[in-house]
Amino acid sequence: MKVVIVGGVAGGMSAATRVRRLVPDAEIIVLERGEHVSFANCGLPYYIGGTIEHRSALLLQTPESLHDRFALDVRVRHEVLTIDRAAQTVQVRDHRAGVDYTQDWDHLVLSTGAAPVVPSVPGAERALTLRDVADADVIAEAAARSRTAVVAGAGFIGLEMAENLHTRGLSVALVELSGQVLPPLDPEMAQPVLDHLRTQGVSVHLGSGIQRIDATTVVLDDGSTLPADLVIMAIGVRPDSRLAAAAGLTTGPDGGVVVDASLRTRDPRIHAVGDLVQKTDAVSGQAGLVPLAGPANRQGRLAADAIAGRAVHDGDSQGTAVISVLGLTAAVTGWNEKRLRAAGRRHRIVHIHPLAHAGYYPGATPLSIKLLIDAQTDQILGAQAVGTEGVDKRIDVLATAMAARMRASDLLRLELAYAPQYGTAKDPVNMLGYLAENLANGTTANIQWHEVEAARAAGATVVDVRTAAEFAAEAIPGAINLPLDELRHRLGELPPGRLIVHCQVGQRAHSAVCLLRGRGRDAVNLDGGLLTWRAGNLARGEL
Amino acid sequence: MKVVIVGGVAGGMSAATRVRRLVPDAEIIVLERGEHVSFANCGLPYYIGGTIEHRSALLLQTPESLHDRFALDVRVRHEVLTIDRAAQTVQVRDHRAGVDYTQDWDHLVLSTGAAPVVPSVPGAERALTLRDVADADVIAEAAARSRTAVVAGAGFIGLEMAENLHTRGLSVALVELSGQVLPPLDPEMAQPVLDHLRTQGVSVHLGSGIQRIDATTVVLDDGSTLPADLVIMAIGVRPDSRLAAAAGLTTGPDGGVVVDASLRTRDPRIHAVGDLVQKTDAVSGQAGLVPLAGPANRQGRLAADAIAGRAVHDGDSQGTAVISVLGLTAAVTGWNEKRLRAAGRRHRIVHIHPLAHAGYYPGATPLSIKLLIDAQTDQILGAQAVGTEGVDKRIDVLATAMAARMRASDLLRLELAYAPQYGTAKDPVNMLGYLAENLANGTTANIQWHEVEAARAAGATVVDVRTAAEFAAEAIPGAINLPLDELRHRLGELPPGRLIVHCQVGQRAHSAVCLLRGRGRDAVNLDGGLLTWRAGNLARGEL
Ligand SMILES: Cc1cc2nc3c(=O)[nH]c(=O)nc-3n(C[C@H](O)[C@H](O)[C@H](O)COP(=O)(O)OP(=O)(O)OC[C@H]3O[C@@H](n4cnc5c(N)ncnc54)[C@H](O)[C@@H]3O)c2cc1C
Ligand SMILES: Cc1cc2nc3c(=O)[nH]c(=O)nc-3n(C[C@H](O)[C@H](O)[C@H](O)COP(=O)(O)OP(=O)(O)OC[C@H]3O[C@@H](n4cnc5c(N)ncnc54)[C@H](O)[C@@H]3O)c2cc1C
Ligand SMILES: CC(C)(COP(=O)(O)OP(=O)(O)OC[C@H]1O[C@@H](n2cnc3c(N)ncnc32)[C@H](O)[C@@H]1OP(=O)(O)O)[C@@H](O)C(=O)NCCC(=O)NCCS
Ligand SMILES: CC(C)(COP(=O)(O)OP(=O)(O)OC[C@H]1O[C@@H](n2cnc3c(N)ncnc32)[C@H](O)[C@@H]1OP(=O)(O)O)[C@@H](O)C(=O)NCCC(=O)NCCS
Repeated sequence: MKVVIVGGVAGGMSAATRVRRLVPDAEIIVLERGEHVSFANCGLPYYIGGTIEHRSALLLQTPESLHDRFALDVRVRHEVLTIDRAAQTVQVRDHRAGVDYTQDWDHLVLSTGAAPVVPSVPGAERALTLRDVADADVIAEAAARSRTAVVAGAGFIGLEMAENLHTRGLSVALVELSGQVLPPLDPEMAQPVLDHLRTQGVSVHLGSGIQRIDATTVVLDDGSTLPADLVIMAIGVRPDSRLAAAAGLTTGPDGGVVVDASLRTRDPRIHAVGDLVQKTDAVSGQAGLVPLAGPANRQGRLAADAIAGRAVHDGDSQGTAVISVLGLTAAVTGWNEKRLRAAGRRHRIVHIHPLAHAGYYPGATPLSIKLLIDAQTDQILGAQAVGTEGVDKRIDVLATAMAARMRASDLLRLELAYAPQYGTAKDPVNMLGYLAENLANGTTANIQWHEVEAARAAGATVVDVRTAAEFAAEAIPGAINLPLDELRHRLGELPPGRLIVHCQVGQRAHSAVCLLRGRGRDAVNLDGGLLTWRAGNLARGEL
Repeated sequence: MKVVIVGGVAGGMSAATRVRRLVPDAEIIVLERGEHVSFANCGLPYYIGGTIEHRSALLLQTPESLHDRFALDVRVRHEVLTIDRAAQTVQVRDHRAGVDYTQDWDHLVLSTGAAPVVPSVPGAERALTLRDVADADVIAEAAARSRTAVVAGAGFIGLEMAENLHTRGLSVALVELSGQVLPPLDPEMAQPVLDHLRTQGVSVHLGSGIQRIDATTVVLDDGSTLPADLVIMAIGVRPDSRLAAAAGLTTGPDGGVVVDASLRTRDPRIHAVGDLVQKTDAVSGQAGLVPLAGPANRQGRLAADAIAGRAVHDGDSQGTAVISVLGLTAAVTGWNEKRLRAAGRRHRIVHIHPLAHAGYYPGATPLSIKLLIDAQTDQILGAQAVGTEGVDKRIDVLATAMAARMRASDLLRLELAYAPQYGTAKDPVNMLGYLAENLANGTTANIQWHEVEAARAAGATVVDVRTAAEFAAEAIPGAINLPLDELRHRLGELPPGRLIVHCQVGQRAHSAVCLLRGRGRDAVNLDGGLLTWRAGNLARGEL
C-alpha cells in the first residue's frame, strides 16, 4: 500500500505516523512544500516575542527523526502542483533539486491547511502574515528593525501577535474592523480583554478597516494614520484548497473541502483533514470551518484509521479555543449569542462572575462566564469565560458537558474537584447549573443587558438591591435603590409594573427576585448584574 | 410552613437559604450545636497553618447576616437532643441560656455532618481532631506551644494537617496504617506524593498504627517512638447519625442515614443531607459514604426543593476530590484499581505521563494520569492524577465525562481548549481516549506494573525500547535493550514468546508494540512505562 500525504504538519504528520502504526509495511511519503515538518505553528508568536527562546524548540520532528522512528519518506520543499485522480498520481515540484516529477499513490491524504487572508488594499504587499517557521523568521527579523507595528485583526492570532510584539518592546496598534476584540466572544465578554489590552499599553482601534498601507504608516477607513514600521495581517485564514478544487474535489462556500464522516472527499481514495476541510458544527449540524490544532490532529489520525480499513466516524466540532492576552485568559466553546440571534435560534443566557477559588483562601480572582442554552431542550449551546485563573478549566468542563449533550441544568450535579485552592464548594460550573435550572423550571427569569432599554420604554423600573454605599458609588442611570436586606420590609415602596432587579453580579438580585415573585410581582434578574450591564454598554460605546 | 434544620453549615444552611427563596413565608429555624454557622470547614487547616491569616475569613455568614438577608431564625449553641417523630418536635438544649425546650416542625432537615473517628488507643484523649472552628482554635493554640507533631492518617485531612503544621515550622511525622499515603489513590499514583512529602521534610511512617500516646511521644505498633508535643487524629470520619438513629431512622452499615433520591429518610417529613447520609455510588449503584462539601451543598438545596413540593432526583456520587500537598496536586474521581480488583469487576487501565502544557512553551511540567475503564462497556469508572499543573482541570473533565457516561474512547473526540500555555494539541485527556480506544478495539494490549513478574515467570521477556544511554542509566532488572529507532531492522534478535515492551512512559513502546504485533509477535505495552513500574515497585517497597 502506497500512501501519499500532502502537508507535513498537524493533520498530515498525524496521519502518517498512525498509518505506520496500523500498517507496518505501508510505503508512506509525506510531501511538504515548506522547509519544515511537524512544527509548532501555535508557538510561532511566542518565538517572535522571545518567550520561546530557541527556534529549535518549535521543530518537534525532523525528516530524519521521522525516517528513523517511523520509516516515513518525508520530502521537504516538495510542492504538489496537481492531482491526477484518474491516474492516481500527483505532480510534484522538488524546489531543492529544481525538478518536477510524478508520484503515484493508492491513498492520498490532503492536509494542506489554511492560508492567511490578505485584503487587497493598496500597499498590502508590505504586510506580513504568519503561518509557518519561515514567516516567523521574517517577522522576527523585521521586528528587530521596527519601533512601531500595526496588527490588523483582533482574533486569536492577531491578539497573540499584538501581545508578542508589545512584549518585544514595539509600540503596537491593533486594528479590527468589527466593533470588538476577539469576535468569537460576545462583546460584553470581550470587553475585559479590550480594557486589559489598553491598560497594558496596546492601542486598539475598533470598527475601522485598513484603507491603505504606506511606507511607514497605515491609514484607516476613518482617516486616522498609525505609525507602522511593521504591518501584520491577521484578519483570518482560508482553507488552502486550490489543489483539491483543481482536482475536482468538492469545496464549500467558505472554500473548505467537503468530506464525509470518515474524512473521504468525493473521491473515496482521497482523504482530507484539518484546516483544509469543512467540519460538522456541533450546534447546527451544518458545515463550517474550525481551523484549530486539536481537530487537525484528531482527523489526521482518523483518516489513517480509515485508510487502514477501519470504520471511522469523526465527531462534531465545537471550536473550543483559548488565548492568553498579557496575563488574562479568554476561552470559548460552541456558539455565541451573536450567532444564535442571527440564526433566530431560541436560547437562554446566564452570566456569572464568581471567584475562581474560595474567597477565604488567599489569591482568589474573579472570573466571568457566560453560558448559552437551548430554550427548548435545555442543552448547552456554547460558553465563554474570561479571567486570570481557572478559565481554561471551566471551558474544558463545559465543552465536555456540551459534547456529551448534557442539559445545562445537569451541571449542578457535576462533582468537581474542590479544595479551596482550586475552586469553590459549588464550583462556578455547578453555579451555572443552578442558574440554568432556575430558568428552565421558571423559578426565576432574567433579562440581558441589551434588553434593558426596551423593557424600560415599556414601563419597567430598574431596582438596585445593593447597599446604599454601592449605589452611591456607581449606579445604572434611572435605577432606584432598595437594599436586599431591607426589601422584605419595604416592598410597598416599589412602583407598580415590571421590576428589573439587579445587584453587582446577579446573586443578591436572585434572592430579591425570588421574594418579589413570591409576592406576586413581575420581577426579572438583570443577568450578570451591574458588571455585565457595564461591560455591555462599554462595548457598544454607551458609557 | 415551619421548617427546622439541624446543623447550620454546608448542607443545612444551603437548605435554609433555598427554602427561603422558594417559600417566602416559611418559618425557618436553624439549630446549630456549635458557636458558628456557615463556616469554611475546608479552610480550617490553612487557618491553622497561617495561610489564611484572619479567622473571620472562615465565617462566611453569621446568624445576624442570615437573619437580615434571609429572615432565618438561626440559633447557635442550640443542640438537638432527640427527635419525636410522632409529635413532630425536637428536644433542644440551649447551651447559652442553659435551658431545654421543645420545638415543633412541619419539615425537619438533618445535616449533622460527620465526626472524626478516634481509635481507642491508650492516651487517645490527648489527641486533637479537626471538625469546626472551635477545634481549629484549640489546635492553633496547641501548635503555638509545640515543636513536634504526629498526624495520624494520611488521607485528605491528615495530609492537609501535616502540610500546615510543617508550614508553621513544626517537625511533623505522618503515620498511616495502610501501606501508602492518600488511600483513595492507587499506590503507584500516591508514590509521588510520598516522595514529595519526604523531600520537603515530613517524616512518613506507613503500614503502622498507633499503639499508644504518651505524654510527649507516640508509640507505633512497630515499636518506634515519635516525639509528639501535639497529636492530631485524622484517620477518617463517620456520619454523626446518633440523633437520626435514635429517632428510628434507618442507617446503613457505615452509619450513614438512608435516604431516597429526593433525600427523604424513611419518615417522609424528615430529610437528611450531606456527610450524614449514604449516597448512591456512581459505579456500583450501591450505597456509600462521600463526605465532601460539593455533594453536601447540592443535597441541601435539593432537600429544600423537595420540601417546596418539587420533584427532586439527586444524582449518583463519584467522590471527586483534590488536594494540594506542599505544592503538588493530587486528585481523584470514581473508583480506583484496588476497589475494582476487590470487587472483581473487569476493567482496563491506562497510565500516561504527559506534559501539562506544550513542551515548546516554557515552564511545562509533567503530569501523571490513570484512567480506569469498564472492560465490557468502555465506560469510565474512575481516574487519578498527580502533578503540579493542570491536575484539577483534567480530573474535572474526566469527572464530567464519567458523569455523562461517556465511553473512554470518546475522550479522543473532546475538543478542549488548546493554546501552548494551557495544554497540548492532543490534550492529555484526548490522549487517554487514544489509549483507551487502542485497547478497546484490540490495536494493542497492555500489562500493569504489578503483572510483570507473573508474566515473566510464564516466559515473557521485557524489552526496553529506549536509547542505550537511557537503558544504561536505569533499567528494569532482566530487561533487554533494543531502541525503537533500530527495532524495525533488528526484529530477528528478539527472543521467542511474549514480549513486554516498555519505554519511559509508554509512548515509544506503543509504536514498538504496533510494529511487533504487525509482524505477528505477541507483544504488550508495559502501561505507563518505566515511570509507572518504578512508582509501583517503590510503593510496595521492592526498589
Ligand atoms: C500563528 C498560529 C498560531 C496558532 N495557534 C493555535 C492555537 O493556539 N491553538 C490551536 O488549536 N490552533 C492554533 N493554530 C492553528 C493550528 O496551527 C492549525 O489548526 C493546524 O496546524 C492545522 O493543521 P493542518 O495539518 O490542517 O495544517 P498545517 O499545520 O498548516 O499544515 C499544512 C501544511 O501543508 C503544506 N502545504 C500546503 N500546500 C501544499 C502543497 N501543495 N504541497 C505540499 N505541501 C503543501 C503547508 O506548507 C503546511 O506546512 C495556530 C496557527 C497559527 C498559524
Ligand atoms: C478540616 C476539613 C477539611 C475539609 N476539606 C474539604 C475539602 O477540601 N473539600 C471538600 O469537598 N470537603 C472538605 N471537607 C468536608 C466538608 O467540610 C464536609 O463534607 C461538609 O462540610 C459537610 O457538610 P454537612 O452539612 O453535611 O456537615 P457539616 O458542615 O459538618 O455541618 C454539620 C453541623 O451540624 C452540627 N450538629 C451536629 N449534630 C448536631 C445536633 N445534634 N444539634 C445541633 N447541631 C448539630 C455540627 O455542629 C456541625 O456544625 C473538609 C472537612 C474538614 C473537617
Ligand atoms: C507529533 C506528530 C508527528 C504525530 O506523532 P504521533 O506519534 O502520532 O503522536 P504523539 O507523539 O502525540 O503520540 C501519540 C501516539 O502515542 C500513543 N501514546 C501516547 N502516550 C502513550 C502512552 N503513555 N502509552 C501508550 N501509548 C501512548 C497514542 O495513543 C498515539 O498513538 P495512536 O495514534 O496509535 O493511538 C504530529 O502530530 C505533528 O507533526 N505535530 C506537530 C504539529 C502540530 O501539531 N501543530 C499544531 C499544534 S502546535
Ligand atoms: C453559603 C450558604 C449559606 C448558602 O447560601 P446560598 O445563598 O444558598 O448560596 P450562595 O451564596 O452560594 O448562592 C447561590 C444562590 O445564588 C444563585 N446565584 C449565584 N450567582 C448568581 C448570579 N450571578 N445570578 C443569579 N443567581 C445567582 C444561585 O442560583 C443560588 O440560588 P438557588 O439555590 O436559588 O439556585 C451555605 O452554603 C453555607 O453555609 N456555606 C458555607 C459552609 C460550607 O459550604 N462549607 C463547606 C465548604 S468549605
